[in-house]
Amino acid sequence: MTAQPDQNPANAERIIISVDAMGGDNGPSVVVSGIAKSAEKNPDIGFILHGPTEILRPLVAKRSGLKGRVEYRDTPDVVAMEDKPSHVMRNGKSTSMWSTLESVRNGEAQGAVSCGNTGALMALSVIRLRKLPGVNRPAIAILFPSRNPQGFNVMLDAGADIRADPQDLLQYALMGASYARNGLDLKRPRIGLLNVGTEEHKGRAELKEAQTLIARFADQASFEFVGFVEGSDIPGNAADVIVTDGFTGNVAIKTGEGTASMIAGLLREAFQYSFLSRLASVLAITSLGRLKKRIDPRRVNGGIFLGLNGTVVKSHGSADATGVSAAVKLAFRLARSGFSEKLAARVASTVELAQDAVEPPPDRAEQQEDEGRI
Amino acid sequence: MTAQPDQNPANAERIIISVDAMGGDNGPSVVVSGIAKSAEKNPDIGFILHGPTEILRPLVAKRSGLKGRVEYRDTPDVVAMEDKPSHVMRNGKSTSMWSTLESVRNGEAQGAVSCGNTGALMALSVIRLRKLPGVNRPAIAILFPSRNPQGFNVMLDAGADIRADPQDLLQYALMGASYARNGLDLKRPRIGLLNVGTEEHKGRAELKEAQTLIARFADQASFEFVGFVEGSDIPGNAADVIVTDGFTGNVAIKTGEGTASMIAGLLREAFQYSFLSRLASVLAITSLGRLKKRIDPRRVNGGIFLGLNGTVVKSHGSADATGVSAAVKLAFRLARSGFSEKLAARVASTVELAQDAVEPPPDRAEQQEDEGRI
Repeated sequence: MTAQPDQNPANAERIIISVDAMGGDNGPSVVVSGIAKSAEKNPDIGFILHGPTEILRPLVAKRSGLKGRVEYRDTPDVVAMEDKPSHVMRNGKSTSMWSTLESVRNGEAQGAVSCGNTGALMALSVIRLRKLPGVNRPAIAILFPSRNPQGFNVMLDAGADIRADPQDLLQYALMGASYARNGLDLKRPRIGLLNVGTEEHKGRAELKEAQTLIARFADQASFEFVGFVEGSDIPGNAADVIVTDGFTGNVAIKTGEGTASMIAGLLREAFQYSFLSRLASVLAITSLGRLKKRIDPRRVNGGIFLGLNGTVVKSHGSADATGVSAAVKLAFRLARSGFSEKLAARVASTVELAQDAVEPPPDRAEQQEDEGRI
Repeated sequence: MTAQPDQNPANAERIIISVDAMGGDNGPSVVVSGIAKSAEKNPDIGFILHGPTEILRPLVAKRSGLKGRVEYRDTPDVVAMEDKPSHVMRNGKSTSMWSTLESVRNGEAQGAVSCGNTGALMALSVIRLRKLPGVNRPAIAILFPSRNPQGFNVMLDAGADIRADPQDLLQYALMGASYARNGLDLKRPRIGLLNVGTEEHKGRAELKEAQTLIARFADQASFEFVGFVEGSDIPGNAADVIVTDGFTGNVAIKTGEGTASMIAGLLREAFQYSFLSRLASVLAITSLGRLKKRIDPRRVNGGIFLGLNGTVVKSHGSADATGVSAAVKLAFRLARSGFSEKLAARVASTVELAQDAVEPPPDRAEQQEDEGRI
């Protein structure tokens, strides 16, 4: 983990992104291609690259656009996808992932990107960067293609923690609103709380408590609370930010991705069925290409970790160069907007009030009678 | 709720389906169209129709195929979509939904179909039909379009109860396996337990317990247990039956449906973009029609309630005639196969063994340490 600057990327104007070159499914060459793409498009970005220098240096040398833009941190070890977070927390000091976060921690970089093991990355982020004051459970926010004008909904928690109590859900709402404001330019984002129905009597008791709590903070935190939303609203237009626990969020995202990929496969098969359908598919290429671009997951690659002292973007493990570049762009954009500091201020301003505000919802007896039912 | 048989549908060979004509989004005329469709295709089916007779009789009279196939039960009231289950349980005796279940309870019909309020239908089914011995929580099983050879996965619980403990999840596995055997003709269905990752250390503690429990009963109950599956496997080909709690299941289904409908909308827009794309869409009509048919939710309309003394099929509230007919077909098929009795025998044979088998999984300390992480 010794510094080996071979050029000087420390342009005073530049925003430096700390990138874990290892741990993705496609190896470091894809990561280097990705940062090269970003470097070409964006002169204001520099990189600190973490991994075995003898592997990374030749990959970077091939990309003229990266000349003078990359520093290295030589790390011998890699966090594998199957490594348990608890193991990595105890034994991960020599890994590229640990080192990537270290550069954010010590202020060398303004944001981090990794394609590696999500659970390990979150666990290390929590112990190394620390949670923001008042945040109990950090969350992962992702963008989900939707029928919104902006084309995407923010959804959190996408899988940082399988649990969330009403206080956590309130914090997710606050953090999600901040992210939608800074990441999607929505002045007054609409927040929805994911449940099994939109009626007030439905769902788990903690969701009813969270509903009451979030509603109270809507004005102060400049969002509109639309109340309960359903799974169909994740790709819909009822809300801009969908708040849920990480278990439900993770299942929902993967179900949506799986459904989209099933349909894409069936669409391909349908168009290969006959001569006429193959002809149609040739004519339809532009239309289908437009559709594909609209919902291409690579365009919105990157779950953002919210609730930490520092910006960490988790790229999809199987991301290609376009995906890595999108994750870098997100980290850059948030770093430049001072998002992390704004978020910290927002959470700090509400946390004490929220703790005072917790009280059981009204009509508890009847709610409990119904709460098993959907 | 007096019997008013105007013809005699009681052919000895016929299977009688009890149908709630009221409570759907589209009114009784769609329900009557649906049962007329079924009657045309299937000479072995008869109906008991529940609702205000003065409304139903003229609708039925217009359908010559229903002549001699329908009995009426005159009920003045309707369960509304927004009625709370607890309210309906106390005050619902004069509703068409209550009466529909009554015909199954007293043996006049071999199965029930309703498009009404799901929560109320489940609540009434539990108090009127009673749970099977050994079943703690009945479940709703649905068919989800998938990349399986059979084209569909069974998924349960789709929303009967927001909670499920390891014993419940075991029963869902047993009931889902029975349903896949009788409903999809799969001799040895593959069962998967929904989680946030397929690694053994991931997810909630109760899921790890359920995993151990379900694995023990695989041979005895003639299914293959594939272990943990993820949201992407619901439309995938890793399992034939996806087991989860009703909260997660409900969110997953609605997310999948919402994603499919978003893609369909975008596809339409993409094809309307230019002259060339409109031309392509004309040529592609057959291909797209094939795809639409493959994943048409109306073809698999009907959540089946499992774990009760009797077959109850919940049709989608917004079902059209094709959807209602599909739900009737499902009820008919299951009634004819003696599914309800087979399921009862299967659950009874395992429930005692299962209760003995519950013990904490090994390596509890380390699991707890990790269990918050995904």
